[in-house]
Amino acid sequence: MQINTHLQQLPGNYLFTEIANRTQAYQAAHPSARILRLGIGDVNRPLPAAISDAMHRAVDELTRVETFRGYGPENGYDWLRQAIVDYDYTSRGIHLSPEEVFISDGAGSDLGNLSELFDTANSVAILDPSYPAYVDTSRMAGREIIFLPCVAEHNFRPELPARKADIIYLCFPNNPTGTVLTRKELAAWVDYARANHSIILFDAAYEAFIEDPDVPHSIYEIDGAQEVAIEIRSYSKSAGFTAVRCGYTVVPKATGLQAMWRRRQCTKFNGASYISQRAALATYTAEGKAGLSANLNYYKQTARLLMDGLQDLGYRVYGGKNAPYIWCETSNKMDSWQFFDFLLNSCQVVCAPGVGFGEAGQGFVRFSAFSNRDDCHEALRRLQSL
Amino acid sequence: MQINTHLQQLPGNYLFTEIANRTQAYQAAHPSARILRLGIGDVNRPLPAAISDAMHRAVDELTRVETFRGYGPENGYDWLRQAIVDYDYTSRGIHLSPEEVFISDGAGSDLGNLSELFDTANSVAILDPSYPAYVDTSRMAGREIIFLPCVAEHNFRPELPARKADIIYLCFPNNPTGTVLTRKELAAWVDYARANHSIILFDAAYEAFIEDPDVPHSIYEIDGAQEVAIEIRSYSKSAGFTAVRCGYTVVPKATGLQAMWRRRQCTKFNGASYISQRAALATYTAEGKAGLSANLNYYKQTARLLMDGLQDLGYRVYGGKNAPYIWCETSNKMDSWQFFDFLLNSCQVVCAPGVGFGEAGQGFVRFSAFSNRDDCHEALRRLQSL
Repeated sequence: MQINTHLQQLPGNYLFTEIANRTQAYQAAHPSARILRLGIGDVNRPLPAAISDAMHRAVDELTRVETFRGYGPENGYDWLRQAIVDYDYTSRGIHLSPEEVFISDGAGSDLGNLSELFDTANSVAILDPSYPAYVDTSRMAGREIIFLPCVAEHNFRPELPARKADIIYLCFPNNPTGTVLTRKELAAWVDYARANHSIILFDAAYEAFIEDPDVPHSIYEIDGAQEVAIEIRSYSKSAGFTAVRCGYTVVPKATGLQAMWRRRQCTKFNGASYISQRAALATYTAEGKAGLSANLNYYKQTARLLMDGLQDLGYRVYGGKNAPYIWCETSNKMDSWQFFDFLLNSCQVVCAPGVGFGEAGQGFVRFSAFSNRDDCHEALRRLQSL
Repeated sequence: MQINTHLQQLPGNYLFTEIANRTQAYQAAHPSARILRLGIGDVNRPLPAAISDAMHRAVDELTRVETFRGYGPENGYDWLRQAIVDYDYTSRGIHLSPEEVFISDGAGSDLGNLSELFDTANSVAILDPSYPAYVDTSRMAGREIIFLPCVAEHNFRPELPARKADIIYLCFPNNPTGTVLTRKELAAWVDYARANHSIILFDAAYEAFIEDPDVPHSIYEIDGAQEVAIEIRSYSKSAGFTAVRCGYTVVPKATGLQAMWRRRQCTKFNGASYISQRAALATYTAEGKAGLSANLNYYKQTARLLMDGLQDLGYRVYGGKNAPYIWCETSNKMDSWQFFDFLLNSCQVVCAPGVGFGEAGQGFVRFSAFSNRDDCHEALRRLQSL
């Protein structure tokens, strides 16, 4: 047997491992230090009762012969697919059918597996900096990658690829920069894809943080996008489901890919957990929405606290509005890891070095609204006394 | 963008769709008929209290700030990986480390995704008949397939490939034939793989049905297997988790593939549901084991009922011992679909036509121990009065 050399030769991604290692080394050398972790990208607010009640009911159903369920439909239960169409799309004037919505165990799986739809000879355009899995997945398939630098001079908005890109990963609101695109800005990407017969894989994991009416919640708010875009969504950040595991991907029939994705999923995926799908359905109830809105507001307030606090201290910060991430320029032209070490050593604050998300992230770090609120207050106090 | 033509050109697999269509058509034409479904491969016994209690506790943990959890480790929680090593392997004299065990959302995903580890130029050997996903996954990757016919003359045991196979899918206890291999018979496959530098993907989904001490529960009971075999296991049939979604795959370091699979999973998978992993852990408690053992005995008794009943009626049946599936030769040399139609029309019994699992399945049908017990009794009565 011969192994897949693209996968074998893939360099390790050590960003979060390296953060953990340096943090642990500091703690070991300073056992009494209270380290404040402000770089994390994971939720911390508990599930609202409307969600957990739905999960308890689903578990109970599985304990009785009369209500026991086995395999669900590979592409998700109709009641969840219909709720998604109604609440996430029809409500915004977007027409989709439930057959175009595919329930999954999370956006991470779909973002990786969607790559299988395309010929490996296809080139991929990826924002720099970006969530590392886009690059890693593309390298595993042996694809040519066109990096699209997102720099301060252009407010971290990428420019259209100079040469033809077949597949384009876009993530807005963006991880890690917190950048959003207006409807008009996003339309330029849809136009590019239509003109070049490209496909856009639109990662909308942070959609719930959008407040500005000029910022589209879905790429399908743009005319013609259903022909050229697949949208990947997640309950991880909007509903705190990083442990629960549920997400969905929209593959419009107009892309010509819907039947292929259905075939892929029916062959290599046996459906998301019934309990998780019931939890996802509960996010659309009045009680569910109210509980999740309270959690989202909490994260948004944390984002505002960090934004304002860092700005008051003289840092140049970006993102943080319509997004849970604050992209912060290092002080004194330090590189990302120098600044990481400086903050860790001088005030025991941990951030995420921007260069870990791509070369264009050099000179920046990411702070996260998913950090503990008290830790944010304390971190700003410590930064002030530097 | 160019699509993956291997995926695009994949013929549809219509076995279960066709079964459903013919059954619905019959019901529509005969509204008062009570149709007995004996072809299904899905569990129906409810979860024992020890399992559901663990799930309720896990849900409750997610509702409180102090016990909330977000992302788990991509490869599964250490407590579950350790329990698997201890209870499923060490107890049988097999030495594995928890880092060689990868928790997933089910065997279906792993059986599909493991294909990514290997060069697409590699050939694949697949039993005929077999679970359709092995063939479909291999075709999606554009691989050459070597079919290994399993015929009555050889008791449905496959012969070693006549020419070199790089990747070999084996499933024992077998779906759909119910065949098992003795330790000595399985050792011949391990020897073949070692001699030919092949890798065996060993699907052990039905391991819990094994009772015969000569039949190995794990391929790692065979000396040297850790160098050439990946074992895929599932809680779906052993614990009734087809709705819960949890399984695991063992990739021994001796295969040289453990680090690659870890990298693949860390990039394209964000871990199994926390609730499902807690449920899986509960299967190893005394109460969990007792509850599951009762369910398994129920299915085994159903298998025995079907085996004995069909045999008494003069049918030639195979499998059904150490396995939940009964492989039944059609009467009067009918082909699989003729016999399906005959049973549906004459006594409203639904089976799974063997040819749907591969050409060598022609002339056979599959009955399942996961069928409703009362329906089995009634089906045997109706068959007797034919």
